[in-house]
Amino acid sequence: MTHQQQTLDLSIALLERPSVTPDDDGCQDILSSRLAKAGFDCEFMYFGNKEQSGEHAEVKNLWARRGTADPVICFAGHTDVVPTGDEKNWTYPPFTPTIKDGFLWARGAADMKTGIAAFTIAAERFVASHPEHNGSIAFLITSDEEGPSINGTVKVIETLEARQEKITYCLVGEPSSTDTLGDIIKNGRRGSLGAVLTVTGKQGHVAYPHLACNPIHAAMAALSELTSATWDNGNDYFPPTTLQVSNINGGTGATNVIPETLEVVFNFRFSTETSEEELKAKTHAIFDKHFADSKASYDIQWKLSGQPFLTPEGKLVSACQNAIKSVTGTDTTLSTSGGTSDGRFIAPTGAQVVELGVRNATIHQVDEKVEVDDLGKLAQIYEGILENLLLE
Amino acid sequence: MTHQQQTLDLSIALLERPSVTPDDDGCQDILSSRLAKAGFDCEFMYFGNKEQSGEHAEVKNLWARRGTADPVICFAGHTDVVPTGDEKNWTYPPFTPTIKDGFLWARGAADMKTGIAAFTIAAERFVASHPEHNGSIAFLITSDEEGPSINGTVKVIETLEARQEKITYCLVGEPSSTDTLGDIIKNGRRGSLGAVLTVTGKQGHVAYPHLACNPIHAAMAALSELTSATWDNGNDYFPPTTLQVSNINGGTGATNVIPETLEVVFNFRFSTETSEEELKAKTHAIFDKHFADSKASYDIQWKLSGQPFLTPEGKLVSACQNAIKSVTGTDTTLSTSGGTSDGRFIAPTGAQVVELGVRNATIHQVDEKVEVDDLGKLAQIYEGILENLLLE
Repeated sequence: MTHQQQTLDLSIALLERPSVTPDDDGCQDILSSRLAKAGFDCEFMYFGNKEQSGEHAEVKNLWARRGTADPVICFAGHTDVVPTGDEKNWTYPPFTPTIKDGFLWARGAADMKTGIAAFTIAAERFVASHPEHNGSIAFLITSDEEGPSINGTVKVIETLEARQEKITYCLVGEPSSTDTLGDIIKNGRRGSLGAVLTVTGKQGHVAYPHLACNPIHAAMAALSELTSATWDNGNDYFPPTTLQVSNINGGTGATNVIPETLEVVFNFRFSTETSEEELKAKTHAIFDKHFADSKASYDIQWKLSGQPFLTPEGKLVSACQNAIKSVTGTDTTLSTSGGTSDGRFIAPTGAQVVELGVRNATIHQVDEKVEVDDLGKLAQIYEGILENLLLE
Repeated sequence: MTHQQQTLDLSIALLERPSVTPDDDGCQDILSSRLAKAGFDCEFMYFGNKEQSGEHAEVKNLWARRGTADPVICFAGHTDVVPTGDEKNWTYPPFTPTIKDGFLWARGAADMKTGIAAFTIAAERFVASHPEHNGSIAFLITSDEEGPSINGTVKVIETLEARQEKITYCLVGEPSSTDTLGDIIKNGRRGSLGAVLTVTGKQGHVAYPHLACNPIHAAMAALSELTSATWDNGNDYFPPTTLQVSNINGGTGATNVIPETLEVVFNFRFSTETSEEELKAKTHAIFDKHFADSKASYDIQWKLSGQPFLTPEGKLVSACQNAIKSVTGTDTTLSTSGGTSDGRFIAPTGAQVVELGVRNATIHQVDEKVEVDDLGKLAQIYEGILENLLLE
């Protein structure tokens, strides 16, 4: 069978499972039984239920490895998918994979069951041709990427770190391509720092403002400065750091009442030109300045979702670039844009991390789909990367 | 019987009626039967039900008048009260008027059934002593002051205007006193102008701000300027105009989504040094300036709740000041502060309008109460005002 037919068949088997996050719904069993036949040691890791283990754990993770030597090239992915919304809005039922007009239609077709299938086929074919390959090949598969991401990759990495098991190169199979397969790979991600600002004043009647302290008024000058500030200018790999306010809420609903509090939720996406500490310090400096003479007070609760990471040009990036060029003829572009991925949990261990997968045009949308012809090509690319890294 | 006993008896009869807005619950029938005996022509006006008339109208209004000549001195008040909230929080049941510790405790004791009772006693005693008095005495009583104020005083005034019936002097019996009976009378009110600002941007993901337009960011500089602006400096009668933002809401709840819109509710309390038109123009100038180069747009929906009005020192103010001085020895202070009252509907007809009533310390609160000894004194003050205006 061809790369194309094999990848399509496995993709369909995975896409038929309605594995809405955090439910794996048997996908990892399909993978582990195939990988075991190919000589992988398969280990399930369960986190997040009462016993922190067992078949009925909410989150299921698979760590599969073939070989004991370095380098370890790991494929990272997730079997969970985002909810479908009202299935009536789908052209084809989201968990009945359908081939039509050159596309494979299903929830998870792009994000990211076809990526998992392609890497599985790549690994099977590679080890069949090179049973005595150098280094190790591994899979890190979770069912908790689209949800809170608390009991998935981050916990598997903690477990591996505790036993000093290291990943050298990590290929995250997230859909990185934009216009054509392989046109973009992500060699880093911005950091994400969230904040909840609470400004506390004193409630009162709008007719007697001198007896109250309006937290909305107290916050406006600081928020104006915060939302118009420049944080850095980015660098060769990263765009400038941005801040966005996602939510602002104050008021009792009544039009004649000055509220007691104002709550503002904002988020930094930050480059390697700044840091969590610097962003916090600059933010507090703005608020401290504007609140120095205010009767209102402010408090900020911070939550770091991920440090920025970067895999500069080097062995893994070159292996990806060359494999893509060889299969599709495309000169790939490096990018660090976009949202977070599980790469943020793997990069801090020292691994080189690159995201490479199918086109992302329809992810998280109704009628998610992927070009059928890209499936075999992606498996070829992944196999090429294994060759480039393990046959040198 | 004394002023005190008469006013207390009538107050209790009114306070026993749970006339929660807009229900009059028979209060106006008690008044009209007594006023008819004193020679008043009584007319009920019903607005707001399907037939716009009839005993079961939602809102009941009483227009009672004795005499046909000018000047017309009118007592304006309302029989409706605000809800009690949980009655368990009251020391005494809110519709079981209770005399204890020198106070009369009941919902409506201060706002404003004792005022209505005092004026009724004052009118009865005055016409008994001066059956052939100059001018006319009138009552304008509504059950729609604490609610939307749509089918109450404003409609009665429209009816009177339509038949060219004019009020010369209007005494609104709202609780104006602060520390002692008669220490403050209100000879005007600020205007109230409400606004709902909607800023529209473009929704998107916080990780891709260049593809979105954040309406919260777009609004901050304008809101900062709006909330720190000076509108006027007030004058001898009015404090400076103030603006207060009561509600600000934007965001989907999700922390990674830039919202489409931001809604901001604000309110001007304005003096006679500015105008509705000027406030609107200045506000639009601020937003036009800040939105000139913005991809976001803004819209403001305005709602005028009341024009400012002022009754300068003159016959009515002097009549009040002299009557208060004579009964309590107090030199009263003129004030235009506080929230709106039905005086805003009466003043535009050209009437002189003053608010004078009991202490307002407990209005709209649990355990509303009024000093028992103030009831007879208030009736004496009101009778003195009738004497000062109609016996000259």
